[in-house]
Amino acid sequence: MINYPNGKKAVEQRQKFVEKANLGSSLEDDLNKTNLFYRQHGVALIYKKPTPIQIVKVEYPARSKAKIVEAYYKQASTTDYNGVYKGFAIDFEAKSTKNKTRIPLKTIHEHQIEHLRQVSYHKGHAYLIIRFSVYDETYLLEFESFERYLNEVKMRSIPYEWIKENAYLCKTTFLKPCDYIGGIEASLQKKGVMTHE
Amino acid sequence: MINYPNGKKAVEQRQKFVEKANLGSSLEDDLNKTNLFYRQHGVALIYKKPTPIQIVKVEYPARSKAKIVEAYYKQASTTDYNGVYKGFAIDFEAKSTKNKTRIPLKTIHEHQIEHLRQVSYHKGHAYLIIRFSVYDETYLLEFESFERYLNEVKMRSIPYEWIKENAYLCKTTFLKPCDYIGGIEASLQKKGVMTHE
Repeated sequence: MINYPNGKKAVEQRQKFVEKANLGSSLEDDLNKTNLFYRQHGVALIYKKPTPIQIVKVEYPARSKAKIVEAYYKQASTTDYNGVYKGFAIDFEAKSTKNKTRIPLKTIHEHQIEHLRQVSYHKGHAYLIIRFSVYDETYLLEFESFERYLNEVKMRSIPYEWIKENAYLCKTTFLKPCDYIGGIEASLQKKGVMTHE
Repeated sequence: MINYPNGKKAVEQRQKFVEKANLGSSLEDDLNKTNLFYRQHGVALIYKKPTPIQIVKVEYPARSKAKIVEAYYKQASTTDYNGVYKGFAIDFEAKSTKNKTRIPLKTIHEHQIEHLRQVSYHKGHAYLIIRFSVYDETYLLEFESFERYLNEVKMRSIPYEWIKENAYLCKTTFLKPCDYIGGIEASLQKKGVMTHE
């Protein structure tokens, strides 16, 4: 490697960036892959919603398609994932943490909590999917359990141990790297809702 | 008005564009307004999904937020609207036509039909919302009725009269310019599904 004056720092920063990018996209990739499997095998119909973009300027080059030349990321008003499983409306937000002992609540935004609350109010089934990347473990947490925790415990994070006890561990296989549907099935049974089958 | 050499044509073209823009965005605006009312009054939780954008290039100007400088519209793999009503998963696509006697089927894309078919397969409730803008009438059509029509009739359009007989007319008020939830309620009752209340 050529030793540029600030070579080491640049490499470190790049590694940091790559690490973060991997962690950030990995849960999303795993969910996309799993959802694709669910769709292709008729298990469930769950999609990630597109990221909302504020479009400012579009150009129309002759004979070619519209080109967006100025746009910005917008804050979503809902969660990232929703769909249908056995007639049930399913909605969830997915978060990943590198922390070994707890997930900080600041990673879950107020508008996401409010949206999940609304889903639950309308008798849909709302969840959080939480990954502890150091353990490579992903949990499906019922929104109602999460909200009880928020109301009872005055902490700014949820301990790993609490999640281990109160959420459903997702299975991991090559084709379904974040297999959460077993957790949803168990949650629906626990809630005692009728299946529509 | 200043009479430019090609003044008349330019004005005509502009009017055409304005008309088209109004027609195109009007149903969307009406649905957004109605969905907002439904959300604010706890009737239903239905959102329009963001338009999917393929982002090619992003710039990070110092001290300001990420600026997207090259991006393109992508074809959506799902429909535009979905959400929850009384625990039922609701999904629909909305189309507007200026035609007085029929809606051409080419305006409803194959991937949208396939998505609605999947929603129906998973026991969600799939619909088309169809506006005849010349009459200012909007109808909620069950996907299952629509599919029966496709299978039985070998036409490339659906007659206005057929829709009038087989779909639910949406009410129009100032606060709910496309009030389709009564149609969904009637449809659920006709299907004989249990309400979750």
